[in-house]
Amino acid sequence: MNGNLLYAQSGGVTAVINATAAAVIDTARKHKGRIGKVLAARNGVVGALREELIDTYAEDWRALKGLRHTPGGAFGSCRFKLKSLEADRAHYQRLIEVCRAHDVRWLLYNGGNDSADTSLKISQVAEQLGYQMGVIGVPKTIDNDLAVTDCCPGFGSVAKYVAISTLEASFDVAAMAESSTKVFVLEVMGRHAGWIAAAAGLAGRTHADPPHLILFPERPLDQVDFLNRVRETVETVGWCTVVVSEGVRKPDGQFLADGGTVDAFGHSQLGGAGAAIAALVKDELGFKVHYAVADYLQRSARHIASATDYYHAWAVGEAAVKYALAGKSGVMPVIKRRANRPYRWEIVEAPLSLVANHEKTVPPEFFREDGYGISNKARHYLEPLIQGEAYPEYRDGLPHYVQLRNRLVRKKLDEYEV
Amino acid sequence: MNGNLLYAQSGGVTAVINATAAAVIDTARKHKGRIGKVLAARNGVVGALREELIDTYAEDWRALKGLRHTPGGAFGSCRFKLKSLEADRAHYQRLIEVCRAHDVRWLLYNGGNDSADTSLKISQVAEQLGYQMGVIGVPKTIDNDLAVTDCCPGFGSVAKYVAISTLEASFDVAAMAESSTKVFVLEVMGRHAGWIAAAAGLAGRTHADPPHLILFPERPLDQVDFLNRVRETVETVGWCTVVVSEGVRKPDGQFLADGGTVDAFGHSQLGGAGAAIAALVKDELGFKVHYAVADYLQRSARHIASATDYYHAWAVGEAAVKYALAGKSGVMPVIKRRANRPYRWEIVEAPLSLVANHEKTVPPEFFREDGYGISNKARHYLEPLIQGEAYPEYRDGLPHYVQLRNRLVRKKLDEYEV
Repeated sequence: MNGNLLYAQSGGVTAVINATAAAVIDTARKHKGRIGKVLAARNGVVGALREELIDTYAEDWRALKGLRHTPGGAFGSCRFKLKSLEADRAHYQRLIEVCRAHDVRWLLYNGGNDSADTSLKISQVAEQLGYQMGVIGVPKTIDNDLAVTDCCPGFGSVAKYVAISTLEASFDVAAMAESSTKVFVLEVMGRHAGWIAAAAGLAGRTHADPPHLILFPERPLDQVDFLNRVRETVETVGWCTVVVSEGVRKPDGQFLADGGTVDAFGHSQLGGAGAAIAALVKDELGFKVHYAVADYLQRSARHIASATDYYHAWAVGEAAVKYALAGKSGVMPVIKRRANRPYRWEIVEAPLSLVANHEKTVPPEFFREDGYGISNKARHYLEPLIQGEAYPEYRDGLPHYVQLRNRLVRKKLDEYEV
Repeated sequence: MNGNLLYAQSGGVTAVINATAAAVIDTARKHKGRIGKVLAARNGVVGALREELIDTYAEDWRALKGLRHTPGGAFGSCRFKLKSLEADRAHYQRLIEVCRAHDVRWLLYNGGNDSADTSLKISQVAEQLGYQMGVIGVPKTIDNDLAVTDCCPGFGSVAKYVAISTLEASFDVAAMAESSTKVFVLEVMGRHAGWIAAAAGLAGRTHADPPHLILFPERPLDQVDFLNRVRETVETVGWCTVVVSEGVRKPDGQFLADGGTVDAFGHSQLGGAGAAIAALVKDELGFKVHYAVADYLQRSARHIASATDYYHAWAVGEAAVKYALAGKSGVMPVIKRRANRPYRWEIVEAPLSLVANHEKTVPPEFFREDGYGISNKARHYLEPLIQGEAYPEYRDGLPHYVQLRNRLVRKKLDEYEV
């Protein structure tokens, strides 16, 4: 079967999702006999529904080359969840209509948990409607919470950034602690899974090394115990670095810092866990405290992307196109680890049904005995993922990131309200 | 005159202050005939008063090599201000006593505004007490607010980090804005001088480029006008990046976010300007907002230090030793700019009396016409300072930063309460 290929990004972007996009375009171009156009949905599924399809072949080759080391999502992403087939049938049917109108025979959907679920449903609807189209999920998420795959493209880079930032800020605090700041708090992302917080643990090897205390979303916060440990650390080490996940919860299950608003997926929009922990330490222990909130900096830090992560991101994009051409559907290329040291991995095929809606949190054996750090097992898992520095090119002191033209192809259908 | 040399770090540390330290040690070693030991005060002047002096020659040469690319302050720094000669005469006399006891004939004091003042006073007291000792100030501050010098070692690296972070996070927001975050706020350091906030302006070239709005401590915040501009930016660009200095003030002169505590210098300990601006935008305009607080990450980000800044940091350390050996006192090696493009600079000598206690804020002609950005004049000044990437070495995915032994020399005097 010949036709066009549609690629879409979904959910929060990463430092390397554009490397996946570049791999998709690059690989597809090598099969021009079968793949006509490589289209990209503008702002993910929202653009697909609106028939806003970008012709990636209209881009300059230099821009496509630069895409490999550009953070963000080059075609736009979205937080827009398609509900069940019953509740959102019109949307699913519209998607198939748009694909049919543009002879899209392969849909590559690059996202996290929700996107794997959406991809699965789209493939089912296509089949029901008798429209022949391969649907391939492509993994991506900084949260590293996808099932089946050993790790998620996007995670290795945020892990590297967070580990480096924890290390660097700790050198700063160590120098100032005698007469100034004694406790430093770094807030990192991770709503339900503490993978990013765990990655900070790579910055040190012993209890005396930073980060001295990590607060995970998987482990309810015992304030009294936590404060005792902060005090003990300051007494023995002289200062204390705390890494706190935005999703840390009180013993009653409530988020420590709940912004009070919800996003399109019904998740609380968080923020403020770092400030809350800093205020707690300052008020209860009287130490001078500083805190940083990494927020988007951590997931867009392409300037210090992990080379391993970059290779993963490229490989899943390349494999997705190969799966598509091989006639597969309802599958996702995932990363399978063969060995830790030296690190060896390969891409294997997984059914979307196994990936969709399974959130992988940090397993109990990955926590340090006291619950405030990571175990050696976690270290062995995490370490390979931050290896290598995939530096971007620089011009005039800044990374040379590219913006694409994003020229839309002519619409063929009526307007559609999303 | 022969004798020992004492080096001390003071105030907030930077990504490259240890490069200055390494240059001091390296240069001094080349003059072993005249300079006996290179001592370093543990935790700055506090350690000097306590007679806690580190013998830097006891360090491994590999550690000293690694010092060049290690952030923080390797011997410890402090926030401890010596008051006037009248008020703190005992401290000044003790300092001279300690120097005399250890045959310190040259004192190199590496710090910002307050340190230049302290250095000057120490040199005066030494003269009054008839103790022959050269006192050389060595410039350092991320705030870039020192007078006379064209720029301050430490600033170029934070400038580069902030410009890159602004650029990267903006790529993220641009990808998400259609259905999610529309406004991103980055809080940066700068209590009274907006140099760091100004550096963020390097991320873009036009009004449509991020950062769309910069809030400087030099310009009181007009909330209504600011909110109008945020709305306009979202309407025209689709999203908006705001960079806010921690020191931004309300029209009545009050800090927007005042933590309510003061540090040893009597400065307010700030924090929360980013959160305050984010809440303002969310509540008044209803946009989904994210904010990051760079805090210590920005001044310790040795992983992306500016090469220009690194060279400056090295050069002032090297020059300070040469000035000392040339019998100078009460002076500071400063950076003089010869040309912008290609950038040419040299180290010249400046009297400490001209540097001390003069805070250099961002001049009016450096602001964009509307006051929310930087002018071309500012751009021409700032651009050379972020050129080049002085990457550290990596091991196992993390920068190979070093910790020194910091072995103290035997005390010769009685205990002294600081």
